[in-house]
Amino acid sequence: MRNENEVIEGRNAVLEAFRAKKEIDRLFIQDGVKDGPVQTILKEAKKSHALIEFVKKERLDQMSVTKKHQGVIAYVAAYSYSELEDIFALAEKKGEEPFIFVLDGIEDPHNLGAIIRTANQAGAHGVIIPKRRAAGLTGIVAKASAGAVNYVPIVKVTNISNTMEELKQHGIWFVCADMDGQMMYDLNLKGPIGLVIGNEGEGVSRLVKEHCDFVASIPMKGDIDSLNASVAAGVLAYEIVRQRLGK
Amino acid sequence: MRNENEVIEGRNAVLEAFRAKKEIDRLFIQDGVKDGPVQTILKEAKKSHALIEFVKKERLDQMSVTKKHQGVIAYVAAYSYSELEDIFALAEKKGEEPFIFVLDGIEDPHNLGAIIRTANQAGAHGVIIPKRRAAGLTGIVAKASAGAVNYVPIVKVTNISNTMEELKQHGIWFVCADMDGQMMYDLNLKGPIGLVIGNEGEGVSRLVKEHCDFVASIPMKGDIDSLNASVAAGVLAYEIVRQRLGK
Repeated sequence: MRNENEVIEGRNAVLEAFRAKKEIDRLFIQDGVKDGPVQTILKEAKKSHALIEFVKKERLDQMSVTKKHQGVIAYVAAYSYSELEDIFALAEKKGEEPFIFVLDGIEDPHNLGAIIRTANQAGAHGVIIPKRRAAGLTGIVAKASAGAVNYVPIVKVTNISNTMEELKQHGIWFVCADMDGQMMYDLNLKGPIGLVIGNEGEGVSRLVKEHCDFVASIPMKGDIDSLNASVAAGVLAYEIVRQRLGK
Repeated sequence: MRNENEVIEGRNAVLEAFRAKKEIDRLFIQDGVKDGPVQTILKEAKKSHALIEFVKKERLDQMSVTKKHQGVIAYVAAYSYSELEDIFALAEKKGEEPFIFVLDGIEDPHNLGAIIRTANQAGAHGVIIPKRRAAGLTGIVAKASAGAVNYVPIVKVTNISNTMEELKQHGIWFVCADMDGQMMYDLNLKGPIGLVIGNEGEGVSRLVKEHCDFVASIPMKGDIDSLNASVAAGVLAYEIVRQRLGK
């Protein structure tokens, strides 16, 4: 569901936004400002999914549209996030084994949008993204997704590994892509599955990889290191589609 | 091979660039300027692969770095183009059936870069792009390709359909992606092949589609129209890789 305002400035406006349970992606607080109202905002922010960043006054001045930020600026998610249950509900409604994308730190909003678009077309039931070090649901992401953000439940979690353990309780198996894995065509990817896609530069983090059941490799015949993250996600997702179709 | 200067301004500099056979992607001429030196530049430009555009003075003023454009600005390709023979030579050197990407009007430089990167990793021997209505080999493309522009021969042609007919004489079969095609898993994509990828918004043009031997469809289970062009290219390219590997 589309949210309306994307930037909120000033102490009262930001505090109101948290109290009204708006989905705030990022909260920026001026370095060194520690008075009562700011403490109250921080307390509310910690109850939410917001990523809190302390920045210099000059940065806030640059970001500010109203030029009256009072040391506080919040970015509201352009679209609403879903809960894990929504993913399982969608799979159940379609009568399909759950198929979930887990994005371990995709930073480029165009990649995030393209991957959400792929998730929808490949028939995935949801996309999980982390709170930290990752792109959130901005307008750019929505546009790059060609509107798919309106159809695929997107869940933001604090800790990807913990969420994977939780999902394993629901019978989900996890596969991630890495050079040292088994060739993807030789793996059985038919059951309830979570496809883990790593960060653009660093790939899947060590901890997340340790929580994966399979490591799949895409055949690489080239002279460079890897594929673009959204292309790799597409190639792996469609290998899952192929196996599910029994082709 | 990396070229040095990307923007050339002023009549003498641009004319010299054409005469030195620099690979100029686009030539911008100020509307209404028709004097002798500009006619000479136009004559040289028409012998080259440059796309010529007539634009208002204000646009040239904006584009100009030196502020001395004299009504003429040329964009040099950041990387050098190859010839069709280079593609066949690479396939022969590797002892493989030719595998060529044909891009029918990819406009976004990030998509073009990602597709060149995929072409390299999927083991393609070359990428063909059209002169008009398409991104050229700029620095952005090179960066998005993760350096693959240095390894994959990229050929710029005046007319995609004519080039396809020429390649058919060399035994190449062409497959393009479209919704109304046969499911890609059911097609035989093992021989010498040209993979045709359409424009981001409009897909493969009618004329180019008529020159294709197969129309392949990627299964689409979603609520939106299509995949991102570079993702679609990746999914199709890897279906060709899978079939070539006999998996």
